[in-house]
Amino acid sequence: MTTGRTDHQRRERIIAATLDLIADDGVAGVSHRKIAARAAVPLGSMTYHFNGIDDVLREAFTTFADQIVALFEAHLGAATDRDEVRQAVADLVHALSEGPQRDLVLTQELYTLAARRPEYRTLTTRWMRRSRALLEQHFDPATARQLDALIEGLSLHHALDSEPHDRALTVEAITRITTDTPR
Amino acid sequence: MTTGRTDHQRRERIIAATLDLIADDGVAGVSHRKIAARAAVPLGSMTYHFNGIDDVLREAFTTFADQIVALFEAHLGAATDRDEVRQAVADLVHALSEGPQRDLVLTQELYTLAARRPEYRTLTTRWMRRSRALLEQHFDPATARQLDALIEGLSLHHALDSEPHDRALTVEAITRITTDTPR
Repeated sequence: MTTGRTDHQRRERIIAATLDLIADDGVAGVSHRKIAARAAVPLGSMTYHFNGIDDVLREAFTTFADQIVALFEAHLGAATDRDEVRQAVADLVHALSEGPQRDLVLTQELYTLAARRPEYRTLTTRWMRRSRALLEQHFDPATARQLDALIEGLSLHHALDSEPHDRALTVEAITRITTDTPR
Repeated sequence: MTTGRTDHQRRERIIAATLDLIADDGVAGVSHRKIAARAAVPLGSMTYHFNGIDDVLREAFTTFADQIVALFEAHLGAATDRDEVRQAVADLVHALSEGPQRDLVLTQELYTLAARRPEYRTLTTRWMRRSRALLEQHFDPATARQLDALIEGLSLHHALDSEPHDRALTVEAITRITTDTPR
């Protein structure tokens, strides 16, 4: 029993330490040795819990994606009518872009990894699918996909611009992308 | 004369080698020594032409941004009416997301650098400003900003999704974001 719990805690500590290391030094800076030292676990724990460094990275980024999906859910959960949903999505864009720099860095590290190594696109694909599923509770699938891409672009541009756009522009963009145009 | 030309060529070779190295190994993998070796220039050239590694990175990413801005210009330049512009923007989204993996990686490397170190946001800010200026030849400033964010999000999601959206969805999103909604 005790061993099981210790094992579970160690696994979680390793994942947390991996995300801390990636946030500080990037994916290129991680190694079994550095992660074990940061997590304060024996080096042997790494191979006991994970099947190589790619497995550690996968599990760490999956844990991170879960946190951001939970943020999506927290924002969208309470909204009932379409206007409330649009305001909730605007809140989400600004929460993502004005939130902890760590989240921005970790997101970009994952995208860079997936850009360089297509086998990591299973992670980004799954993450996008989950975000879209939440948006599909309020919009048709095509609109959800467009809105998800817009949330990404608005958050990223807001975060990386020294003179970022204001919330009114975010709301206008969300309203436009969720409104049918005449054919 | 000859020396001047050699100097200029060396500077360009250093910048090209820096981008190659970043594409292969990431920003974390660059150093004066590695760049000089890859560019086949004496190590002393690095300090002759650049004021430290941050200066090299800035110049390299500025050169890269120039190339992507030129791609924007090439796509948007020929379009005349609004429908042609929308089709040109859709072509641009798919050119960005289906183009060389190298461009995708370099873009994400710059964003990651700017996410981690805010002093690099002068580069991303300037890049976005130039893209928006091109879009403002066809749209009002607020629409140009929304469209620029949408282009970013659609290109990125298309590139990192194992089951990416089709061109019709891209066109619909562009049409929506460039259409005024009733108040």
